[in-house]
Amino acid sequence: MADTRIDVIGIGSTVYDMLMVVNRFPQEDTKQRGLETRIQGGGPCATALVAASRLGLTTAYMGTVGDDSFGQYMLDDLNRWGVDTSHMRVEHGAVSYHSAVLLNQETGTRTCVWNPGTVHPPEPEQLDERALRACRALHLDGHMLDAAIHAAEICHEAGIPVCLDAGGVYPGIERLLPLVSLLIPSEEFALRFTGEATAENAALCLMQRYHPQVIVITQGSRGGLILDEHGLRRYASFPVRVLDSNGCGDTFHGAFLAGFLGGMQADDACAYASAAAAIKCTRLGARQGMPCDGECRAFLAERGLLLNPASSSRKSSMEDEAEGARR
Amino acid sequence: MADTRIDVIGIGSTVYDMLMVVNRFPQEDTKQRGLETRIQGGGPCATALVAASRLGLTTAYMGTVGDDSFGQYMLDDLNRWGVDTSHMRVEHGAVSYHSAVLLNQETGTRTCVWNPGTVHPPEPEQLDERALRACRALHLDGHMLDAAIHAAEICHEAGIPVCLDAGGVYPGIERLLPLVSLLIPSEEFALRFTGEATAENAALCLMQRYHPQVIVITQGSRGGLILDEHGLRRYASFPVRVLDSNGCGDTFHGAFLAGFLGGMQADDACAYASAAAAIKCTRLGARQGMPCDGECRAFLAERGLLLNPASSSRKSSMEDEAEGARR
Repeated sequence: MADTRIDVIGIGSTVYDMLMVVNRFPQEDTKQRGLETRIQGGGPCATALVAASRLGLTTAYMGTVGDDSFGQYMLDDLNRWGVDTSHMRVEHGAVSYHSAVLLNQETGTRTCVWNPGTVHPPEPEQLDERALRACRALHLDGHMLDAAIHAAEICHEAGIPVCLDAGGVYPGIERLLPLVSLLIPSEEFALRFTGEATAENAALCLMQRYHPQVIVITQGSRGGLILDEHGLRRYASFPVRVLDSNGCGDTFHGAFLAGFLGGMQADDACAYASAAAAIKCTRLGARQGMPCDGECRAFLAERGLLLNPASSSRKSSMEDEAEGARR
Repeated sequence: MADTRIDVIGIGSTVYDMLMVVNRFPQEDTKQRGLETRIQGGGPCATALVAASRLGLTTAYMGTVGDDSFGQYMLDDLNRWGVDTSHMRVEHGAVSYHSAVLLNQETGTRTCVWNPGTVHPPEPEQLDERALRACRALHLDGHMLDAAIHAAEICHEAGIPVCLDAGGVYPGIERLLPLVSLLIPSEEFALRFTGEATAENAALCLMQRYHPQVIVITQGSRGGLILDEHGLRRYASFPVRVLDSNGCGDTFHGAFLAGFLGGMQADDACAYASAAAAIKCTRLGARQGMPCDGECRAFLAERGLLLNPASSSRKSSMEDEAEGARR
């Protein structure tokens, strides 16, 4: 009988993306035929939950969508990828967060028009405190900030790790940072937020100010930095032929959590997460391209990287394969 | 008890439009916040059916959509506006025709990326011949052409008027033209298709070649030309403050059919259709802004234009008002 406890609860951004592939960027006031359209769920938090779910964790999203067709799509999509939506709010009459993206096939540029809609984040008192106290980690991305802070206070107090994908310097984010134990900012965030000139100094500055358990500063294809009680060191990324980088960062965050909750130390969790992100990059689709645990381990093993045997995610790769066959 | 006979059957374009209002046209490779998003049904044929339905006719759409969220939206939207969708095909696994439109609020420009999807028009043998033989008019827009030609042959043979909104010079359209009795091309189509230098000559050329009962060449805000057994003359448009011209042309076509089936002669039908289009222009939304019969008659009466008393659409304006109150 499966454990009904939720491993990771996420509060943050979920977005309906309509991505149209074009062979050139359109001129204003013209009509142009698009080559292909992909509707997909996006948003850092929701997508990281999908990655974690794909890697064997039980996950739940605790944000809000509107009761429009965008919201319905996002709800269905999260369910499809195994993310529990029973704690999700569907707001009557609200327009969900959505975007249209023009992907230029020739140049690879992405031009995005986004609209936050009229949807409200959950009020702090609407969050299911019992579910939060029972989870193994809380994942945040800086969106729906008041709800995120309230949930982080509950988890922090209960000794449950709070993980933050810090991508944008949103107003008020400094209120959240003291509650975060796994702080994973982009290099851009770390430099902008601290005003430091190097990622190393930014990591030291963030540690001194907020005392998280681990800081991982992500630098995209250059890998990144780890700072924890064992000091400051780098982790590597894996060079791959990139087919679609969409969702790679979110895959890293979801996979880091899967590794961490599977008992990995920060270095192993970063290697595991880098492998997951690299595999995702070689495949089309933010969510379709996400690997399972067995694929990440095989990817690392092929490169002579064996994770600490104590490190294991919740499902074995055999279970993954069985699940893959059922899809 | 209402007549179950369908007044107008339409075969042609139906489109899912995602319209995003922006305060400037985006630069390539940037992210920009949109001001407002409107999802709406489009496509000349489907939108003309909505206009005719709003003016009191019973209408049915006989084209195809995919079973994706775009197709579901279009089906629901046609139902919402009173267009019978029981003859519509929903193709399993197909992507519906869709578009994204960026409307520049400052300049009024519309930049459209469209995608025909993978949906197939109905095969000629899939059309409900019995329904076609029982309708009072067939409305076409040049899309789904093989099905349209097959339906036009059935209606032509049965003496049922075939109306064509000729907007684009699509390959094969010349096969349809001999079957058309109410030919309503845009001026652009008429000039391009005939190679003539003036709309007058184009009208004469089209009449000589295809012998429709009436030709109406539309010239937008300049009104247009009528050519029938009574000769060539102009009809006027009504100057109004344009708020949203989207759907005005389709409203003209739907209203012309409503007038024609209500017993109006071509001149009255054009006045009635011009009034409907003008009212639509003063209101937001391609379909939301469409007037009812009473509004068109009041608009004309205010301008001292009384239609031939023999001309009456199927519903009185009192009925329209009663219906309006129910919405």
